[in-house]
Amino acid sequence: MDIVSALKNLLNDGERVSTNPAILEQHSKDLTYHEPHAPDVVVFPQSTIEVSQILQLAHQHRIPVVPFGMGTSLEGHVIPVRGGISLDMSRMNKMVELRPEDFLVRVQPGMTREQLNQKLKKHGLFFPVDPGADASLGGMAATNASGTNAVRYGGMKDQVLGLEVVLAGGRIIRTGSMAVKSAAGYQLTNLFIGSEGTLGVITELTLKLSAIPEAVVAARAVFDDIGQAGQAAAEMISSGLAIGRIELVDAYTIRAVNQYKQTDYTEQPTLFLEFSGRPASVEEDVQLAKEMTRHNGAKAWEEERDSLRRARLWEARHQAALAIIARSPGKKHMVTDVCVPISVLPEAIVQARSEIERHQLEAAILGHVGDGNFHVAFCFDPDHPDERNKALAVNEAVVNFALAHGGTCTGEHGIGLGKIKYLEVQYGPAVEVMAALKQTLDPRHILNPGKIIRIGM
Amino acid sequence: MDIVSALKNLLNDGERVSTNPAILEQHSKDLTYHEPHAPDVVVFPQSTIEVSQILQLAHQHRIPVVPFGMGTSLEGHVIPVRGGISLDMSRMNKMVELRPEDFLVRVQPGMTREQLNQKLKKHGLFFPVDPGADASLGGMAATNASGTNAVRYGGMKDQVLGLEVVLAGGRIIRTGSMAVKSAAGYQLTNLFIGSEGTLGVITELTLKLSAIPEAVVAARAVFDDIGQAGQAAAEMISSGLAIGRIELVDAYTIRAVNQYKQTDYTEQPTLFLEFSGRPASVEEDVQLAKEMTRHNGAKAWEEERDSLRRARLWEARHQAALAIIARSPGKKHMVTDVCVPISVLPEAIVQARSEIERHQLEAAILGHVGDGNFHVAFCFDPDHPDERNKALAVNEAVVNFALAHGGTCTGEHGIGLGKIKYLEVQYGPAVEVMAALKQTLDPRHILNPGKIIRIGM
Repeated sequence: MDIVSALKNLLNDGERVSTNPAILEQHSKDLTYHEPHAPDVVVFPQSTIEVSQILQLAHQHRIPVVPFGMGTSLEGHVIPVRGGISLDMSRMNKMVELRPEDFLVRVQPGMTREQLNQKLKKHGLFFPVDPGADASLGGMAATNASGTNAVRYGGMKDQVLGLEVVLAGGRIIRTGSMAVKSAAGYQLTNLFIGSEGTLGVITELTLKLSAIPEAVVAARAVFDDIGQAGQAAAEMISSGLAIGRIELVDAYTIRAVNQYKQTDYTEQPTLFLEFSGRPASVEEDVQLAKEMTRHNGAKAWEEERDSLRRARLWEARHQAALAIIARSPGKKHMVTDVCVPISVLPEAIVQARSEIERHQLEAAILGHVGDGNFHVAFCFDPDHPDERNKALAVNEAVVNFALAHGGTCTGEHGIGLGKIKYLEVQYGPAVEVMAALKQTLDPRHILNPGKIIRIGM
Repeated sequence: MDIVSALKNLLNDGERVSTNPAILEQHSKDLTYHEPHAPDVVVFPQSTIEVSQILQLAHQHRIPVVPFGMGTSLEGHVIPVRGGISLDMSRMNKMVELRPEDFLVRVQPGMTREQLNQKLKKHGLFFPVDPGADASLGGMAATNASGTNAVRYGGMKDQVLGLEVVLAGGRIIRTGSMAVKSAAGYQLTNLFIGSEGTLGVITELTLKLSAIPEAVVAARAVFDDIGQAGQAAAEMISSGLAIGRIELVDAYTIRAVNQYKQTDYTEQPTLFLEFSGRPASVEEDVQLAKEMTRHNGAKAWEEERDSLRRARLWEARHQAALAIIARSPGKKHMVTDVCVPISVLPEAIVQARSEIERHQLEAAILGHVGDGNFHVAFCFDPDHPDERNKALAVNEAVVNFALAHGGTCTGEHGIGLGKIKYLEVQYGPAVEVMAALKQTLDPRHILNPGKIIRIGM
């Protein structure tokens, strides 16, 4: 059985079934240190029916299928570790239905978040989930992505109302509805969100939208000590301040951003803040936040209301990961991603910094501290096992600290290849339940095999 | 095999294994028209280990187990239609751990929401999910309950961070964590929320808490026409106003409440509103809302800041269901519960009222219109099949309208016995997926059999 010919027959369009080496290479990797592995073929479906036919064929012949969005995952999710089909969803990128009066939109999975926001602007609306990269919305749902807006709006699981999903054998189902709440049976929408393509392929999403806030004030507060910054963040969150965003960036990262973007931020631990809403309440909250940072030892406070200066400030934060990579050309990127209860955050950050120093590594600490979620970003030479092992050791220490304090091994990047063993530590017997669900929905283990759980490994 | 003796042996406490007829009768019914059916025995576990032992025994002997909280469900969830064990969780009602600085609490499932809020008050915190009844928190999670606060805080699925669950065979698992977000594997927490006791028994919950707002203003707006009231509600929501609560109550219900509570509200369609947050923004929003109601034809607007008067106003809303029942002593209660996209709401309400009139029934319309969720409440004589059939016909018309307009057959009451056929209409093949998940987690169908799906029927 020649799968490539069969797929070409199925789609009746040779151009959308590719074995071009450059295309295979492009679908062999994500943004990180995880070992690339090429698929046997890359397929570009254009409709749900085509996805269904492809999965039927793959199921029949037990061929792995790995959904691929923009390839921006950070734990190896899109790497076809057992070959097979890389299912590139980029041509399914249409807006299906926009209902501004209902604050919702239906989109195909290949549309990226920035493409969507471009279309929403003229309606005064936006989609708030903002991982660093311009990821595809299908990929964001598959990994339960979040980002800097999560402290106000939550992550994908909070913003997806329904899905169309194709199951392993080709069956097409719909979950959720266009109502903002529902108690109708098992919450299948949430079962597929965060399932990383291992339970089904998302072919349509119904998303909640939000009004673009009237007033926005950006601020930053500079601290001598990262513990103080974490403490200030925890206090602001605990006080119920209506913060839109609160990001902690450490001195190392500020230095990297300054070099990469030719900016001149003070190179010390810094909280980047954003307050948004109606003008009166925003100004009230900015003043309260300023007080709280000062009270926790901040030595500088800046506010920005002008949209260009705000954008520059936040663009820098969004570019932080790229800035770190730019410091170490040719090296591989690795990012830890734990989430802990808010009150534990300052101690967790101090512990992470001490582990980095103990291992004599260069690494940045940055993160979405409003949720207790933070990252340590490393670069290492893939041909230098000692560097790699040190980074892995810091990762392990950071994860173990989080798990010992009621946290989770991943706040927003997902399990993929990199966190399988930590998922087992975190959940023990609940992983057997996950494996049983996987077995039920994908009995031949064709859907993104080797990710999340060890079943069929 | 005498199951009662076996259970008494297991718990080593005869008092907590009851076949007393009054106890059996109390566990045979919910608050509604659904036909009662007594369990064979009621068991009162005191620990997770006991629940595990009971489920192990039940699994071994294929005995149905129906978890029971406060018995306040509205679609027959707690009725042991096949006999067996009613597992009364009321003695597992402890607070396990309170972490005010992390805005979270761990509780046992038998604690009610009012018991919890009593304990939280002195910390300036509260748990926002508020179905009408003082339900148990375990039951609220099992049905994905919500209530008047959902427009601001969401429902149980938005407020539960993690669970401890005992599975059919007695296995104990933990889901989620104490971190506010996580991308660690399949979202098992959300699989059990809304599963109505058919997939496992919840033995502990980790809940998010919220700060009690600084300022609260209650308001009401009276309209000539229920369509106008719905239109005003839709406009307020679409404008992104920070509404805490927005409830629509129709003239019939206002009349019933006035009679029941000796109040003197104007007997016309009325929006009950609440605005809460920091003082400045609350006052701004109240003025905007007032404008919007006037613009949509409201003929009266009242505001209340005094906490006693606010409480009286909202107590009346919470008592609405009881007021309807009080009008028809000896009759049975039935409540529809659809949820539609916000923009469809005014039309849905007008359609529901016209169906009620067409069938010459007396019924109230009330609901959480901020979410597009509304209820039609009937009373009928159970010995009068014509009345019952008319009510069921209105229910069907209301559900069909919702499904035809992108809504859901239940916004917050769940499927239970009463909505099984509508779940099938709503989801088609996705119900087969639900059945497969049920089969995987409860292969002998001992957990609340006959609810949500027809498996094993």
